[in-house]
Amino acid sequence: MASEPAPPRGAEPVDPRVLRSRAAALAAARAMLLEEGWEAVTHASVASRSGVGRTTLYRHWPEATALLRDVLREQIEIDHTAPTGDLRDDLIRELGALRGQLHRPPLERAMRTMIERAPTHPAYAELKEFLYQEGSRVLDEIVRAGIARGELDPRLDPSRAIDQLAGPLIYRRLLAGRTFTEAYVRDLVDDFLHAHRPHR
Amino acid sequence: MASEPAPPRGAEPVDPRVLRSRAAALAAARAMLLEEGWEAVTHASVASRSGVGRTTLYRHWPEATALLRDVLREQIEIDHTAPTGDLRDDLIRELGALRGQLHRPPLERAMRTMIERAPTHPAYAELKEFLYQEGSRVLDEIVRAGIARGELDPRLDPSRAIDQLAGPLIYRRLLAGRTFTEAYVRDLVDDFLHAHRPHR
Repeated sequence: MASEPAPPRGAEPVDPRVLRSRAAALAAARAMLLEEGWEAVTHASVASRSGVGRTTLYRHWPEATALLRDVLREQIEIDHTAPTGDLRDDLIRELGALRGQLHRPPLERAMRTMIERAPTHPAYAELKEFLYQEGSRVLDEIVRAGIARGELDPRLDPSRAIDQLAGPLIYRRLLAGRTFTEAYVRDLVDDFLHAHRPHR
Repeated sequence: MASEPAPPRGAEPVDPRVLRSRAAALAAARAMLLEEGWEAVTHASVASRSGVGRTTLYRHWPEATALLRDVLREQIEIDHTAPTGDLRDDLIRELGALRGQLHRPPLERAMRTMIERAPTHPAYAELKEFLYQEGSRVLDEIVRAGIARGELDPRLDPSRAIDQLAGPLIYRRLLAGRTFTEAYVRDLVDDFLHAHRPHR
Protein backbone atom coordinates (compact mmCIF):
# COMPACT_ATOMS: atom_id res chain seq x y z
CA MET A 1 0.00 0.00 0.00
CA ALA A 2 1.40 3.37 -1.04
CA SER A 3 -0.35 5.82 1.31
CA GLU A 4 -0.45 5.49 5.06
CA PRO A 5 -3.86 5.60 6.70
CA ALA A 6 -4.56 8.63 8.91
CA PRO A 7 -4.26 7.82 12.63
CA PRO A 8 -7.65 7.19 14.29
CA ARG A 9 -9.20 10.39 15.69
CA GLY A 10 -8.06 11.06 19.22
CA ALA A 11 -5.28 8.42 19.02
CA GLU A 12 -1.81 9.38 20.19
CA PRO A 13 0.58 9.74 17.25
CA VAL A 14 2.91 6.73 17.28
CA ASP A 15 6.53 7.54 18.02
CA PRO A 16 8.54 6.52 14.92
CA ARG A 17 11.20 5.03 17.20
CA VAL A 18 8.56 2.68 18.58
CA LEU A 19 7.67 1.56 15.05
CA ARG A 20 11.34 1.09 14.22
CA SER A 21 12.11 -1.02 17.26
CA ARG A 22 8.97 -3.06 16.67
CA ALA A 23 9.98 -3.73 13.05
CA ALA A 24 13.55 -4.61 14.06
CA ALA A 25 12.30 -7.08 16.69
CA LEU A 26 9.87 -8.73 14.26
CA ALA A 27 12.60 -9.07 11.62
CA ALA A 28 14.95 -10.72 14.14
CA ALA A 29 12.22 -13.07 15.36
CA ARG A 30 11.34 -14.03 11.77
CA ALA A 31 14.97 -14.83 10.99
CA MET A 32 15.28 -16.99 14.11
CA LEU A 33 12.05 -18.83 13.32
CA LEU A 34 13.51 -19.72 9.92
CA GLU A 35 16.93 -20.72 11.19
CA GLU A 36 16.17 -22.56 14.41
CA GLY A 37 12.42 -23.02 14.86
CA TRP A 38 9.91 -21.14 16.97
CA GLU A 39 11.37 -22.16 20.35
CA ALA A 40 14.45 -20.05 19.59
CA VAL A 41 12.26 -16.93 19.69
CA THR A 42 12.66 -15.63 23.26
CA HIS A 43 12.90 -12.09 24.66
CA ALA A 44 16.60 -12.60 25.36
CA SER A 45 17.50 -13.91 21.90
CA VAL A 46 15.43 -11.30 20.06
CA ALA A 47 16.97 -8.52 22.16
CA SER A 48 20.47 -9.71 21.42
CA ARG A 49 19.86 -10.12 17.69
CA SER A 50 17.84 -6.97 17.06
CA GLY A 51 19.60 -4.58 19.44
CA VAL A 52 16.20 -3.63 20.89
CA GLY A 53 16.23 -3.49 24.70
CA ARG A 54 14.52 -6.24 26.65
CA THR A 55 12.34 -3.76 28.52
CA THR A 56 11.02 -2.43 25.21
CA LEU A 57 10.34 -5.97 24.01
CA TYR A 58 8.42 -6.85 27.16
CA ARG A 59 6.37 -3.67 26.74
CA HIS A 60 5.37 -4.60 23.17
CA TRP A 61 4.95 -8.32 23.83
CA PRO A 62 4.56 -9.39 27.47
CA GLU A 63 4.99 -13.02 26.32
CA ALA A 64 7.29 -14.48 23.67
CA THR A 65 4.34 -16.31 22.13
CA ALA A 66 2.64 -12.95 21.44
CA LEU A 67 5.73 -11.85 19.51
CA LEU A 68 5.75 -15.11 17.55
CA ARG A 69 2.07 -14.73 16.76
CA ASP A 70 2.75 -11.30 15.26
CA VAL A 71 5.50 -12.83 13.10
CA LEU A 72 3.15 -15.58 11.92
CA ARG A 73 0.30 -13.13 11.31
CA GLU A 74 2.56 -11.09 9.01
CA GLN A 75 3.27 -14.20 6.94
CA ILE A 76 -0.38 -15.07 6.46
CA GLU A 77 -0.85 -12.16 4.07
CA ILE A 78 -1.79 -14.26 1.09
CA ASP A 79 -1.13 -13.10 -2.48
CA HIS A 80 -4.44 -13.88 -4.10
CA THR A 81 -5.28 -13.56 -7.77
CA ALA A 82 -8.45 -11.95 -9.17
CA PRO A 83 -10.64 -14.53 -10.95
CA THR A 84 -11.64 -13.61 -14.51
CA GLY A 85 -14.34 -16.23 -15.12
CA ASP A 86 -12.16 -18.65 -17.12
CA LEU A 87 -12.30 -21.70 -14.83
CA ARG A 88 -9.09 -23.48 -15.89
CA ASP A 89 -7.12 -20.28 -16.08
CA ASP A 90 -8.40 -18.99 -12.74
CA LEU A 91 -7.51 -22.26 -11.00
CA ILE A 92 -4.04 -22.38 -12.54
CA ARG A 93 -3.28 -18.79 -11.55
CA GLU A 94 -4.59 -19.10 -7.99
CA LEU A 95 -2.77 -22.40 -7.37
CA GLY A 96 0.30 -20.85 -9.02
CA ALA A 97 0.19 -18.14 -6.33
CA LEU A 98 -0.04 -20.84 -3.64
CA ARG A 99 2.87 -22.62 -5.29
CA GLY A 100 4.96 -19.42 -5.06
CA GLN A 101 4.18 -19.03 -1.38
CA LEU A 102 4.94 -22.66 -0.58
CA HIS A 103 8.40 -22.19 -2.07
CA ARG A 104 9.15 -19.03 -0.04
CA PRO A 105 10.41 -20.00 3.42
CA PRO A 106 8.55 -17.43 5.59
CA LEU A 107 5.01 -18.60 4.87
CA GLU A 108 5.97 -22.23 4.47
CA ARG A 109 7.68 -22.20 7.88
CA ALA A 110 4.84 -20.28 9.51
CA MET A 111 2.45 -22.92 8.18
CA ARG A 112 4.50 -25.74 9.69
CA THR A 113 4.57 -23.99 13.06
CA MET A 114 0.81 -23.40 13.09
CA ILE A 115 0.12 -27.01 12.10
CA GLU A 116 2.26 -28.23 14.99
CA ARG A 117 1.06 -25.77 17.67
CA ALA A 118 -2.66 -25.76 16.85
CA PRO A 119 -3.83 -28.88 18.77
CA THR A 120 -2.22 -27.83 22.07
CA HIS A 121 -2.28 -24.00 21.90
CA PRO A 122 -5.61 -22.22 21.18
CA ALA A 123 -3.99 -18.98 19.97
CA TYR A 124 -2.20 -20.90 17.24
CA ALA A 125 -5.33 -22.87 16.43
CA GLU A 126 -7.02 -19.55 15.73
CA LEU A 127 -4.17 -18.41 13.48
CA LYS A 128 -4.24 -21.71 11.61
CA GLU A 129 -8.00 -21.48 11.09
CA PHE A 130 -7.53 -17.95 9.76
CA LEU A 131 -4.77 -19.19 7.44
CA TYR A 132 -7.03 -21.97 6.16
CA GLN A 133 -10.04 -19.71 5.63
CA GLU A 134 -8.11 -16.86 4.11
CA GLY A 135 -5.83 -19.18 2.11
CA SER A 136 -8.70 -21.09 0.51
CA ARG A 137 -11.12 -18.16 0.05
CA VAL A 138 -10.42 -17.42 -3.61
CA LEU A 139 -10.27 -21.12 -4.58
CA ASP A 140 -13.67 -21.55 -2.99
CA GLU A 141 -14.97 -18.57 -4.99
CA ILE A 142 -13.59 -19.96 -8.27
CA VAL A 143 -15.09 -23.42 -7.66
CA ARG A 144 -18.52 -22.03 -6.73
CA ALA A 145 -18.50 -19.81 -9.83
CA GLY A 146 -17.60 -22.85 -11.97
CA ILE A 147 -20.50 -24.80 -10.51
CA ALA A 148 -22.85 -21.83 -11.03
CA ARG A 149 -21.79 -21.55 -14.69
CA GLY A 150 -22.44 -25.29 -15.17
CA GLU A 151 -18.75 -26.05 -15.82
CA LEU A 152 -18.37 -28.27 -12.75
CA ASP A 153 -20.58 -31.08 -11.48
CA PRO A 154 -23.33 -29.47 -9.35
CA ARG A 155 -22.89 -32.25 -6.75
CA LEU A 156 -19.28 -31.24 -6.10
CA ASP A 157 -18.79 -30.07 -2.51
CA PRO A 158 -16.51 -26.97 -2.67
CA SER A 159 -14.59 -27.98 0.48
CA ARG A 160 -13.81 -31.37 -1.12
CA ALA A 161 -12.71 -29.52 -4.25
CA ILE A 162 -10.32 -27.39 -2.20
CA ASP A 163 -8.85 -30.51 -0.56
CA GLN A 164 -8.20 -31.93 -4.04
CA LEU A 165 -6.67 -28.71 -5.38
CA ALA A 166 -4.60 -27.41 -2.46
CA GLY A 167 -4.04 -30.76 -0.67
CA PRO A 168 -1.60 -32.28 -3.17
CA LEU A 169 0.55 -29.11 -3.16
CA ILE A 170 0.68 -28.88 0.64
CA TYR A 171 1.42 -32.62 0.92
CA ARG A 172 4.19 -32.51 -1.66
CA ARG A 173 5.83 -29.47 -0.10
CA LEU A 174 5.35 -29.99 3.67
CA LEU A 175 5.30 -33.76 4.04
CA ALA A 176 7.17 -35.16 1.03
CA GLY A 177 9.53 -32.15 1.16
CA ARG A 178 9.58 -31.94 -2.66
CA THR A 179 9.31 -28.85 -4.85
CA PHE A 180 7.10 -28.65 -7.94
CA THR A 181 6.80 -26.68 -11.17
CA GLU A 182 4.10 -24.64 -12.92
CA ALA A 183 3.59 -27.65 -15.22
CA TYR A 184 2.80 -29.78 -12.15
CA VAL A 185 0.09 -27.26 -11.18
CA ARG A 186 -1.38 -27.30 -14.70
CA ASP A 187 -1.56 -31.10 -14.72
CA LEU A 188 -3.23 -31.07 -11.30
CA VAL A 189 -5.87 -28.61 -12.52
CA ASP A 190 -6.49 -30.68 -15.67
CA ASP A 191 -6.90 -33.85 -13.59
CA PHE A 192 -9.32 -32.00 -11.33
CA LEU A 193 -11.38 -30.68 -14.25
CA HIS A 194 -11.40 -34.09 -15.89
CA ALA A 195 -12.81 -35.64 -12.70
CA HIS A 196 -15.47 -32.98 -12.12
CA ARG A 197 -16.77 -31.84 -15.50
CA PRO A 198 -20.58 -32.24 -15.38
CA HIS A 199 -20.78 -34.72 -18.33
CA ARG A 200 -19.38 -37.36 -15.99
CA MET B 1 3.77 -60.60 16.26
CA ALA B 2 3.03 -63.58 18.48
CA SER B 3 6.47 -65.06 19.12
CA GLU B 4 9.42 -63.10 20.40
CA PRO B 5 12.61 -63.31 18.37
CA ALA B 6 15.52 -65.06 20.07
CA PRO B 7 18.12 -62.62 21.43
CA PRO B 8 21.09 -62.18 19.10
CA ARG B 9 23.85 -64.69 19.83
CA GLY B 10 26.30 -63.38 22.38
CA ALA B 11 23.99 -60.48 23.39
CA GLU B 12 23.44 -59.84 27.09
CA PRO B 13 19.91 -60.75 28.17
CA VAL B 14 18.02 -57.50 28.79
CA ASP B 15 16.98 -56.90 32.39
CA PRO B 16 13.15 -56.85 32.46
CA ARG B 17 13.28 -53.87 34.82
CA VAL B 18 15.15 -51.92 32.16
CA LEU B 19 12.44 -52.74 29.62
CA ARG B 20 9.73 -51.73 32.08
CA SER B 21 11.27 -48.38 32.96
CA ARG B 22 11.89 -47.70 29.27
CA ALA B 23 8.25 -48.46 28.42
CA ALA B 24 6.99 -46.32 31.33
CA ALA B 25 9.13 -43.37 30.23
CA LEU B 26 8.00 -43.66 26.61
CA ALA B 27 4.33 -43.80 27.67
CA ALA B 28 4.72 -40.68 29.82
CA ALA B 29 6.53 -38.83 27.02
CA ARG B 30 3.83 -39.83 24.52
CA ALA B 31 1.09 -38.52 26.82
CA MET B 32 2.91 -35.22 27.30
CA LEU B 33 3.47 -34.83 23.56
CA LEU B 34 -0.29 -35.19 23.07
CA GLU B 35 -1.31 -32.88 25.86
CA GLU B 36 1.22 -30.07 25.67
CA GLY B 37 3.42 -30.45 22.61
CA TRP B 38 6.95 -31.77 22.18
CA GLU B 39 8.66 -29.02 24.19
CA ALA B 40 7.00 -30.38 27.35
CA VAL B 41 9.04 -33.58 26.98
CA THR B 42 12.07 -33.02 29.24
CA HIS B 43 14.00 -35.38 31.53
CA ALA B 44 12.50 -33.68 34.59
CA SER B 45 8.87 -33.85 33.41
CA VAL B 46 9.15 -37.44 32.17
CA ALA B 47 10.78 -38.50 35.46
CA SER B 48 8.04 -36.88 37.50
CA ARG B 49 5.22 -38.33 35.40
CA SER B 50 6.58 -41.85 34.91
CA GLY B 51 8.24 -42.37 38.30
CA VAL B 52 11.42 -43.44 36.49
CA GLY B 53 14.53 -41.87 38.02
CA ARG B 54 16.28 -39.10 36.14
CA THR B 55 19.60 -40.96 36.19
CA THR B 56 17.95 -43.91 34.45
CA LEU B 57 16.39 -41.58 31.90
CA TYR B 58 19.72 -39.96 31.13
CA ARG B 59 21.28 -43.41 30.72
CA HIS B 60 18.66 -44.43 28.13
CA TRP B 61 18.44 -41.05 26.40
CA PRO B 62 21.32 -38.63 26.98
CA GLU B 63 19.22 -35.89 25.31
CA ALA B 64 15.48 -35.22 25.54
CA THR B 65 15.28 -35.09 21.74
CA ALA B 66 16.48 -38.71 21.58
CA LEU B 67 13.59 -39.72 23.84
CA LEU B 68 11.14 -37.78 21.69
CA ARG B 69 12.52 -39.39 18.55
CA ASP B 70 11.85 -42.82 20.06
CA VAL B 71 8.26 -41.77 20.80
CA LEU B 72 7.80 -40.55 17.22
CA ARG B 73 9.43 -43.65 15.76
CA GLU B 74 6.94 -45.84 17.64
CA GLN B 75 4.05 -43.89 16.05
CA ILE B 76 5.33 -44.31 12.51
CA GLU B 77 4.40 -47.99 12.51
CA ILE B 78 1.89 -47.76 9.71
CA ASP B 79 -1.03 -50.17 9.43
CA HIS B 80 -0.81 -51.12 5.80
CA THR B 81 -3.28 -53.25 3.88
CA ALA B 82 -2.37 -56.09 1.49
CA PRO B 83 -3.34 -55.25 -2.12
CA THR B 84 -5.47 -57.88 -3.87
CA GLY B 85 -5.27 -56.60 -7.45
CA ASP B 86 -8.66 -54.85 -7.50
CA LEU B 87 -7.53 -51.26 -8.11
CA ARG B 88 -10.52 -49.38 -6.71
CA ASP B 89 -10.85 -51.66 -3.73
CA ASP B 90 -7.14 -51.63 -2.94
CA LEU B 91 -7.03 -47.81 -3.03
CA ILE B 92 -10.12 -47.48 -0.83
CA ARG B 93 -8.78 -49.92 1.76
CA GLU B 94 -5.28 -48.43 1.91
CA LEU B 95 -6.60 -44.84 2.12
CA GLY B 96 -9.12 -46.08 4.70
CA ALA B 97 -6.17 -47.25 6.82
CA LEU B 98 -4.56 -43.80 6.45
CA ARG B 99 -7.88 -42.25 7.40
CA GLY B 100 -7.95 -44.32 10.61
CA GLN B 101 -4.44 -43.23 11.53
CA LEU B 102 -5.14 -39.56 10.84
CA HIS B 103 -8.02 -39.72 13.30
CA ARG B 104 -5.93 -41.32 16.07
CA PRO B 105 -4.04 -38.63 17.96
CA PRO B 106 -0.66 -40.37 18.40
CA LEU B 107 0.31 -40.61 14.73
CA GLU B 108 -1.46 -37.41 13.76
CA ARG B 109 0.44 -35.49 16.46
CA ALA B 110 3.74 -37.16 15.58
CA MET B 111 3.21 -36.11 11.98
CA ARG B 112 2.63 -32.49 12.97
CA THR B 113 5.80 -32.48 15.07
CA MET B 114 7.93 -33.95 12.28
CA ILE B 115 6.54 -31.46 9.75
CA GLU B 116 7.44 -28.59 12.04
CA ARG B 117 10.89 -29.81 13.16
CA ALA B 118 12.16 -31.16 9.82
CA PRO B 119 13.50 -27.94 8.22
CA THR B 120 15.62 -26.96 11.24
CA HIS B 121 16.54 -30.34 12.83
CA PRO B 122 18.14 -33.04 10.63
CA ALA B 123 17.16 -35.95 12.93
CA TYR B 124 13.50 -35.02 12.51
CA ALA B 125 13.96 -34.51 8.78
CA GLU B 126 15.14 -38.12 8.63
CA LEU B 127 12.13 -39.36 10.61
CA LYS B 128 9.79 -37.36 8.37
CA GLU B 129 11.37 -38.78 5.23
CA PHE B 130 10.97 -42.28 6.67
CA LEU B 131 7.34 -41.53 7.51
CA TYR B 132 6.74 -40.30 3.95
CA GLN B 133 8.47 -43.26 2.29
CA GLU B 134 6.97 -45.87 4.57
CA GLY B 135 3.56 -44.19 4.64
CA SER B 136 3.24 -44.02 0.85
CA ARG B 137 4.91 -47.36 0.01
CA VAL B 138 1.74 -49.44 -0.47
CA LEU B 139 -0.10 -46.67 -2.35
CA ASP B 140 2.86 -46.49 -4.71
CA GLU B 141 2.70 -50.26 -5.19
CA ILE B 142 -1.07 -50.17 -5.92
CA VAL B 143 -0.69 -47.33 -8.44
CA ARG B 144 2.21 -49.03 -10.27
CA ALA B 145 0.26 -52.29 -10.44
CA GLY B 146 -2.76 -50.39 -11.84
CA ILE B 147 -0.56 -48.83 -14.54
CA ALA B 148 1.01 -52.23 -15.34
CA ARG B 149 -2.45 -53.81 -15.72
CA GLY B 150 -3.50 -51.00 -18.08
CA GLU B 151 -6.12 -49.67 -15.67
CA LEU B 152 -4.41 -46.30 -15.18
CA ASP B 153 -2.98 -43.92 -17.76
CA PRO B 154 0.62 -45.06 -18.46
CA ARG B 155 1.77 -41.42 -18.38
CA LEU B 156 0.69 -41.04 -14.75
CA ASP B 157 3.67 -40.33 -12.47
CA PRO B 158 3.18 -42.45 -9.31
CA SER B 159 4.46 -39.69 -7.02
CA ARG B 160 1.88 -37.29 -8.47
CA ALA B 161 -0.76 -39.97 -7.94
CA ILE B 162 0.24 -40.26 -4.27
CA ASP B 163 -0.01 -36.47 -3.86
CA GLN B 164 -3.55 -36.63 -5.27
CA LEU B 165 -4.59 -39.57 -3.09
CA ALA B 166 -2.95 -38.85 0.27
CA GLY B 167 -2.68 -35.04 -0.10
CA PRO B 168 -6.39 -34.21 0.27
CA LEU B 169 -6.64 -36.36 3.43
CA ILE B 170 -3.56 -34.83 5.07
CA TYR B 171 -4.69 -31.32 4.12
CA ARG B 172 -8.22 -31.82 5.43
CA ARG B 173 -6.99 -33.28 8.72
CA LEU B 174 -3.83 -31.30 9.52
CA LEU B 175 -4.50 -27.93 7.93
CA ALA B 176 -8.27 -27.57 7.70
CA GLY B 177 -8.60 -29.45 11.02
CA ARG B 178 -11.67 -31.34 9.71
CA THR B 179 -12.50 -35.02 10.03
CA PHE B 180 -13.82 -37.15 7.17
CA THR B 181 -15.76 -40.34 6.58
CA GLU B 182 -15.25 -43.58 4.64
CA ALA B 183 -17.65 -42.16 2.04
CA TYR B 184 -15.30 -39.19 1.60
CA VAL B 185 -12.45 -41.62 0.88
CA ARG B 186 -14.55 -43.55 -1.68
CA ASP B 187 -15.47 -40.34 -3.51
CA LEU B 188 -11.82 -39.29 -3.56
CA VAL B 189 -10.80 -42.64 -5.08
CA ASP B 190 -13.58 -42.42 -7.68
CA ASP B 191 -12.51 -38.89 -8.64
CA PHE B 192 -8.92 -40.11 -8.93
CA LEU B 193 -9.90 -43.07 -11.13
CA HIS B 194 -12.12 -40.88 -13.27
CA ALA B 195 -9.20 -38.51 -13.90
CA HIS B 196 -6.64 -41.22 -14.67
CA ARG B 197 -8.42 -44.05 -16.50
CA PRO B 198 -6.45 -44.66 -19.72
CA HIS B 199 -9.37 -43.88 -22.09
CA ARG B 200 -8.89 -40.24 -21.25
